[in-house]
Amino acid sequence: MRTIDWIDGAVVLVDQTRLPGEEVYLRLDTVAELVEAIQRLRVRGAPAIGVAGALGVALAAKQYADPAELAAAVHLLETARPTAVNLARGVRRVAALLPSFDAALGEALRIRDEEIASSKAMARLGADLVEKLCGADARLLTHCNTGGLATVVEGTALSVVFELYRRESLGGVIASETRPLLQGARLTTWELRRAGIAHRLAVDSAGPFLMARGEVDAVILGADRICANGDVVNKVGSYAHALGAKAAGIPFICVAPESTVDLSTPSGADVEIEDRGSAEVAGTTAPEGTEAINPAFDVTPAHLVTAIVTDERVFSGRADGAPAG
Amino acid sequence: MRTIDWIDGAVVLVDQTRLPGEEVYLRLDTVAELVEAIQRLRVRGAPAIGVAGALGVALAAKQYADPAELAAAVHLLETARPTAVNLARGVRRVAALLPSFDAALGEALRIRDEEIASSKAMARLGADLVEKLCGADARLLTHCNTGGLATVVEGTALSVVFELYRRESLGGVIASETRPLLQGARLTTWELRRAGIAHRLAVDSAGPFLMARGEVDAVILGADRICANGDVVNKVGSYAHALGAKAAGIPFICVAPESTVDLSTPSGADVEIEDRGSAEVAGTTAPEGTEAINPAFDVTPAHLVTAIVTDERVFSGRADGAPAG
Repeated sequence: MRTIDWIDGAVVLVDQTRLPGEEVYLRLDTVAELVEAIQRLRVRGAPAIGVAGALGVALAAKQYADPAELAAAVHLLETARPTAVNLARGVRRVAALLPSFDAALGEALRIRDEEIASSKAMARLGADLVEKLCGADARLLTHCNTGGLATVVEGTALSVVFELYRRESLGGVIASETRPLLQGARLTTWELRRAGIAHRLAVDSAGPFLMARGEVDAVILGADRICANGDVVNKVGSYAHALGAKAAGIPFICVAPESTVDLSTPSGADVEIEDRGSAEVAGTTAPEGTEAINPAFDVTPAHLVTAIVTDERVFSGRADGAPAG
Repeated sequence: MRTIDWIDGAVVLVDQTRLPGEEVYLRLDTVAELVEAIQRLRVRGAPAIGVAGALGVALAAKQYADPAELAAAVHLLETARPTAVNLARGVRRVAALLPSFDAALGEALRIRDEEIASSKAMARLGADLVEKLCGADARLLTHCNTGGLATVVEGTALSVVFELYRRESLGGVIASETRPLLQGARLTTWELRRAGIAHRLAVDSAGPFLMARGEVDAVILGADRICANGDVVNKVGSYAHALGAKAAGIPFICVAPESTVDLSTPSGADVEIEDRGSAEVAGTTAPEGTEAINPAFDVTPAHLVTAIVTDERVFSGRADGAPAG
């Protein structure tokens, strides 16, 4: 199963807003439909959105002969969401080959295939590292959703879980629920269940205690940005897990594409952390009008990160430059 | 406002199952009604349940003249919930004075007044300590609900927040939502709002990052059990906050009645941690049938605890025996 693909002349994707309750595949024939899907988060995760944008340009080439209409459609795709770098990058790379539909589709499929190859490379390098650090049958704790739903197949950190499972070298998985949006509880559990991999869900704050109690051999999760000094910006809650891993003496491993490494950002202190407002946290539970402080991401300092795995390499960003493991 | 009290010949309590949506006070004239309220968690928190049991015996003395019926009613109260030590202790203390209604009510009101005095003592000792460690206008982070809803008035850790507010020496409060049952999001926010104290809610896993970012001057929370070596057993998530506080170099303070100190338990490793099952965590969000690992409590080792505040003293349970502060 691919999160997003080109099938019989249209973009087909699983509607993530319906998961985990329903598994609905949408067939999108027009740019307008695809833009709606991107904006409504029916497809999410930077790599998956990049592929969506790329395939969208192929759709546009098929749909519009008029150069002005085609350009407008490309612009709509490129700006469907403001912050996802992969989206604009994917759109521009394919748009450079317009107006040829064949050339555009070829390039879009190449981007899709590159994402698939990237997941496979991370899976292999990450699984090798976990086996090296923990031996066989490691029990892993993961956070947020880093699976195939964020990419095209299998994902980043979760691809390592899938690979260890194939190697019959997985001792267990705990999915951290990931408040406030519960990507772990909704999406990671759904992907693991679909793959037939036994797992347990835990509230985020239980992670460090489960590590202290000896229930976890390594923490493995994604990264939204890796700073030049090795600091890792990722979903809020990652830092607490890193403190827990350090205290328990177990590895803390980040898995992300090489494109996540951002040498132009010196350290985590230079990253502005988005506050996503009160509603997501206060929701329907807290008294009406309750204000929240809601950082969407946090910073794990490099000294707490055992290793960073990309599709190209395994490294430690720490000041001592020591290779991981 | 008192969480529970004796008013005009009946037990009156706020129905905590309706909070924060509705503030409903129940007037309970019979032992059966009070037992139902205890069992359905309309009143909760060990000290508050102890007072409920004590006042229940007075109700029983009023309701039953027949010695066998009276004994049966006392037994019902004593066993209304199996694990709350305070309940059985409160019931037995008052039952020793039966069948006199006047004597029973007098003793029950003494237990109520002792709980009120205990909250006031913790408030004063805790506020003194926070001012000593952090100076004026400390910004505090708290976890779970430790307010008046668990006692008769003001509570344990939250009583310190109320006291600092009265002293005009409170710089801010962050309430940690406390998954899975959200006592922080539902109850602590409700108590703070009711008292007119500005506050913000945060997901549990954001706590350590907010400390690292300099948004918190001290962590202050309750304790379910304090072991002989100073290890603190408390609501799951406390340990993660303690790791965050240690990393940020800020105090981590536990506030609980002296009766929480359990010298018969050598350390946290000797405490069996209740797993409350999957439903609370997986709920309606995760795919049907998702299993969870759900420790209700965790253990914060003594070396991470700056100080323990009871109604009698401030101390450090650490091996070096150093007084706190």
